[in-house]
This record gives sequence, structure tokens and C-alpha cells, in this order.
Amino acid sequence: MSIAKKIEESIAKSSWIRRMFEDGIRLKEQYGSENVFDFTLGNPFPEPPEKLHVLIQKEIIDNKPGMHGYMPNAGYVETRQALAAHLSDVYGVPLTSSHIVMTCGAGGALNVILKTLLDPQDEVIAPVPFFVEYQAYTENHGGVFKSVASESHFALNLPALEQAITPKTKAVLINSPNNPSGKVYERETIDALATLLKARSTAYGRPIYLISDEPYRDIVYDGTEVPSILAAYPDSLVATSFSKTLSIPGERIGYIAASPGLADGTIALEGLVLSNRILGYVNAPALMQRIIPALLGVTVDIDIYKRKRDLLCDGLAAIGYEFTKPMGAFYLFPESPLEDEVAFVRALQAKNILTVPGRGFGAPGFFRIAYCVADETIMNAMPGFEEVFKKAKAGRL
Amino acid sequence: MSIAKKIEESIAKSSWIRRMFEDGIRLKEQYGSENVFDFTLGNPFPEPPEKLHVLIQKEIIDNKPGMHGYMPNAGYVETRQALAAHLSDVYGVPLTSSHIVMTCGAGGALNVILKTLLDPQDEVIAPVPFFVEYQAYTENHGGVFKSVASESHFALNLPALEQAITPKTKAVLINSPNNPSGKVYERETIDALATLLKARSTAYGRPIYLISDEPYRDIVYDGTEVPSILAAYPDSLVATSFSKTLSIPGERIGYIAASPGLADGTIALEGLVLSNRILGYVNAPALMQRIIPALLGVTVDIDIYKRKRDLLCDGLAAIGYEFTKPMGAFYLFPESPLEDEVAFVRALQAKNILTVPGRGFGAPGFFRIAYCVADETIMNAMPGFEEVFKKAKAGRL
Repeated sequence: MSIAKKIEESIAKSSWIRRMFEDGIRLKEQYGSENVFDFTLGNPFPEPPEKLHVLIQKEIIDNKPGMHGYMPNAGYVETRQALAAHLSDVYGVPLTSSHIVMTCGAGGALNVILKTLLDPQDEVIAPVPFFVEYQAYTENHGGVFKSVASESHFALNLPALEQAITPKTKAVLINSPNNPSGKVYERETIDALATLLKARSTAYGRPIYLISDEPYRDIVYDGTEVPSILAAYPDSLVATSFSKTLSIPGERIGYIAASPGLADGTIALEGLVLSNRILGYVNAPALMQRIIPALLGVTVDIDIYKRKRDLLCDGLAAIGYEFTKPMGAFYLFPESPLEDEVAFVRALQAKNILTVPGRGFGAPGFFRIAYCVADETIMNAMPGFEEVFKKAKAGRL
Repeated sequence: MSIAKKIEESIAKSSWIRRMFEDGIRLKEQYGSENVFDFTLGNPFPEPPEKLHVLIQKEIIDNKPGMHGYMPNAGYVETRQALAAHLSDVYGVPLTSSHIVMTCGAGGALNVILKTLLDPQDEVIAPVPFFVEYQAYTENHGGVFKSVASESHFALNLPALEQAITPKTKAVLINSPNNPSGKVYERETIDALATLLKARSTAYGRPIYLISDEPYRDIVYDGTEVPSILAAYPDSLVATSFSKTLSIPGERIGYIAASPGLADGTIALEGLVLSNRILGYVNAPALMQRIIPALLGVTVDIDIYKRKRDLLCDGLAAIGYEFTKPMGAFYLFPESPLEDEVAFVRALQAKNILTVPGRGFGAPGFFRIAYCVADETIMNAMPGFEEVFKKAKAGRL
């Protein structure tokens, strides 16, 4: 074999997830896609706001020379200025265009940040459950990924986090609202985390960075507040995108917002722009960058997701599933009635219900249901969810 | 300092290029941009073909549900099928959709390929002059970059290449048509390279990959042929984009075409798709992917670049500059009349003529002129090119 050993291993590790995905395709061919209940993918449900297409049309009609050409690697100055003004309000800190780097989605933003920060063997710590790609993102840039257990209901376990910090810790990476749990960290949690990181940064004489991956910031329920890490902690960076806010994940448009308080301000900001270039992203897609300034503050209808959340939570609660009601994002992360959640997910699959085992998120014993699907999919899957649950409880799985 | 040492070093190393870029901005503010002759950037000159906007309009009017959503990480099947059919002709090998991975430009394509192939300390060899980012792309993925000298007129130096190959060599990376030299390797060169790589692969019992970075394939002059590496060598991969063919570099749309003869076919193809995901690209921008099938075979008017090439070459030849006439791309790479090309580039800058020193391309003693500019820029810069050339030859610089 001649490709990289690490890639080979990753293919082997992820192969059972892919096998399930391929099983899903087979199931849909066999039973018709309306009879398969696919809760595996985080593809936004509502169509983008109409304004998106109005703005694209306007760009096409204006037809400005060079509109599809290169621009500075950080993105159009106009786009970054508009974002900085908008985000100064959102995050409660004074941001200028130099604090913003436009990226190919939040995935691009995180890789640019980690490339910029990590020396070989530097550690990145994330609480469980975490987005499946964090380990790969960290290892892409020579870092070591460490996860720490959470309290019940996915609350941040600060003592565990403190224990995990070492002289090699370069960053703590949080994802709130969380994929897969829907947890949003409260203000007191963020403040306590900031206090802890400040103390450890002072002790080590260098900053431990706080990175917040928050593409679901706008998708929250019941008046939930998403506290600003930029306001709470000087050495912080937000990685995010418009993928979920505007239902455009395929267009790869996101950004980094860097704290104005970064200890290594200028050089860190230059580093982010350099990394955006040398990682081959070069710049975020031009056309999307051009329309973003007129879409700030616009979101898809969040009530659509709230209705789906309630439909799913009410249905599963009535059956007896145990879970923490999501405060944001569009995932539910229930406990598996079987200790081996892979076995449970396979039993659901036998009823044409496709979900994702928790171990990919660092949380075996749980499974993820992405409820960014049609209401009918949720309702029609309930008999299957019930039958498999009862079998599991009766020891018949 | 707390960001990665390697990023800090890269910022420091590139800082004089950036300083010149910033000087250019200052010059334009001071003298007016019409009085500054900026030949530094490879931003395509003609506007994109009109059809591009017609097709975007059509997509917007069709307004298909999910058109901005996630698709498979490799890209839309329809797009890859259309590309495979088109490229089977272009490259002279039978390609299917599984051989194509849609990427965020050629920069994305190269990073995905190198991530997939490189084990730590694996070597990547490229002939001089090479695109400035190749070293960074290689080191992003733990590899070691090695360059080999070329013959006169930028011809491939096969004995030097053979000498440079070691048991750690994972890939040879060529760029033809070349940025910065405009050189296109002839068919006999590619065949001889293939023969050499086959022999060394057999000797080592594992493939040495041949990677061709060819975003300028469609921009060639005087009937120049760009031979297909996929037809010449089984373990080959093409990394390319529509950036130059369609003048849309800001939109980040490109692809990998993998040889159907890859020794590790299936696993290598899976690896490319995995790398596209875990590097955070996730997928190439959706809207651009949707319109690409109707743009295959469409190019900007290449005669525009030919006219600019001839204007520049005729002007500089009359002055006495020595250079190899470009066969493709839109760069001229003349010899500097001063051994220290940075000093010469600075002397040009004093006449408001902005060019790039050759050392960034591994070729000190040369400098790059990007002629993707208005004809007037070329013509109006000639007196300055002449004055500085004469001073240099007279020893007065």
C-alpha cells in the first residue's frame, strides 16, 4: 500500500459508518426513500431565505468587472468591515475588519486556526461529546487531541478540564450550541472557563487559546442566550459559518472572528491569513462573500426546527427514551437503551431508521438523531423507535 | 510568542514580499493606479465567458430544493460524471465519476492529494522554477520538499531528477504550463519521465506518484500540446481548476482527476474523498459545481493573452532582455540583468513597475512578470523597463 498510513487507518476506522451509510442507500432503493427514516445527516431543512437569490441575481445583473477574481486572502475588505460592525454588537467587543478572516465554512475556519496555533505535539482539549472531525482537524496540523468527560446533561466539567490541561495545552475547543447534544453553555460556565484559562495562562506565561466553533449560534430555542467568548476571554477565536443560519452548507462560506484582546494580536492575525492561503483555501468563495453584507442578521425560520425538536422530544419521551432536551442546533443525543449503542443503532436500522452511534462523538452509550428532516419522517419513525426501544428494554435485542 | 513557530517563520520569510506589495499600494495612492504598472498578481484578465452568468441565472430561476445544501464530499455525481466523460477525451484515458473529486480550486486539490499520499518525512520533488506554495503545501502534511534544477529554457533535467529520487520519494510534482516560466513539457519529456518513474517504482516495489498541477492547460499558444500524464503514467493524479480557463479564481472550483491505473485504486480514491472532508474543505462550492457541466470545453479568449505575451516579449526583446518565450500560462520569467534580482526588482519598483523576484520560485537571478494586465500597462511600462535595464547593464544600479 502506498498512500499515507494515517489515511488508510482513518478509512478503516470510519468504514463501518460508511457501511451504514451505504446500507441506507440500499434500504432506500429497496423500500423507497419515503419508507426510510434518515436521521444521519446535518443537512439544514428549510430552504435559504428568499433574499439570498435576490442578492445573487443583483450581483449577476451588476456584473462588476473582476467579481469572480482573486481578492485579499482574508476576504473582501467591504465584507469584513460589514461583518466587523455587525459582530461588534453580537459579541460585545469592538471588532474591525482586521479581526475577521473569511473562510471556506467553519471547517475551513477551524483548520486555519489550528494550523496557525499548533506547534508539533501541542494539545487541543474538547469536552465530550464533540464534533466528529475535531480529532482529525487537530492531527492535520501535528497536534494531539484530548477529550474530557462532561457532567450530566452535557454540562462542562471544569475540574476534569483543569486536570487535563498540561504545559503542552495550546487550546480548548468548545462547540456551543453543540453538535450532537444541543447543549448551550450558560454565561456562568463561560465565565468560569475564562477564569480557569486565565489562571493557567498566567501560570504558564503564555496564552491557552479558547476556540469556539459556533455555526449553530442562531439556532437556539426558548430564549436561550449564547454567551460571547470574545467578551469573556482575551485569547479567544470564533470559528463559524453561514451554513446553518442561511441553509447554505454546500457553498462553504464562513469566517474567523478573532478577539481584539489576543496577546499576539498582529502576528496572530497575519498568521491566520497566511494559513488560509497556504492550506490551499486561498480565499472564501467570492460570490458568497459579496452577498453576505446584505444578509447579516437574516436567518431561516428557527421555529421550523423548534417544532421538529418538540415533535421528536415529545414522541421519544412518551416511549420512555431518556435525553436532555436540546437548547440549540438540530440534533438530539439520547441515551441508548442498550449499553452497546452500535447494536441499538443497528436494530433501529433494521426498522429503516438511520441514526449515528455516539462513539464517533466520544460518547459511547448515546446516539445522534439529526432532526433537520420533514415532520412526517419524525412522525412515521415513531412506531419503529417504540418497537426497538421496547425490545431493548425487554432484553430481546 | 504563542502561535506556531513555523507560521511565525513563514510570516518573517514572506515579509519582504508583503512589504513590496504594501509599497505597491502606497505607490498607487501616491501616483494614481494608472501610473503604477502592477505585474505582480496572477489574477486573470478577461471577464468570464457570458455563459457563466446565464447558467447561474438559470440555477437561481430553477431554484431546486437543496441546491445550496451538502452533497457527497467528492461532489455531485452528475458533475463528476459530466467531467469524467469530457476528461476521458482530454486525457485519453477512460475515466468514471469515481476518478473525479471536486475541490476548492487547484490549491485545494494539491493539499488533498498530498494529505492522502504523504507519510511523515516523505519527499516531494519539483523542478525549478516551481509555484511558490509547493513547499508549504508539502510541509502542511509532514512532507519534505525538494527542488531540482532545470536545463536551459526550463527544460526538465531528467538526470538531476533521477539523482534526487530516494527511497523516501513519494511524489514528483510538475506544473505545465508552468507558473512562472510559461514552459510546457513536450510529450517526449513526459514519456521519458514516466519511464524513469516506472523504473524507480519497480526498484522500490511501490509507486512514486506523478502529480500534475495544470490550471493553465487551456492557456497555451502557437498550437502547443499539453501531453496527458494520465495517459503516460499509471500512478498519476491531475490537480487543476477552472480559475484560469474561465477567469473565476475567487470562486474556488477545481478538481482532482485520478488515473484509472492507480496501483492502490479504490483505497486511494477513498483517501482523496476522506482528505477533502477532514481538511475542512468538505466539498467544492455547490453553485459552481452545478454549472460546471455546461461549461466544459468553454474558455476565455486565449488570443487576448497571446496578444499580451507578444506585446511584452517584443518590447522586452527590443530592449535586450533575455528570456524564453512562454508556451502557455500568462507569465514571463526573464533573466535579471543584475545577478541580484531583488535589487533589480527594487530598481523597477522605483519606476513604479511591480514584478516578483525569482527566488520565491526557487530561481534567483530571474524575475516574474504577470502579463494578465491591460495592454496599456505593458506598453506604458516599456520606457521604465528600458531605463532600468540600461542602467543595470551600465553598472549604474
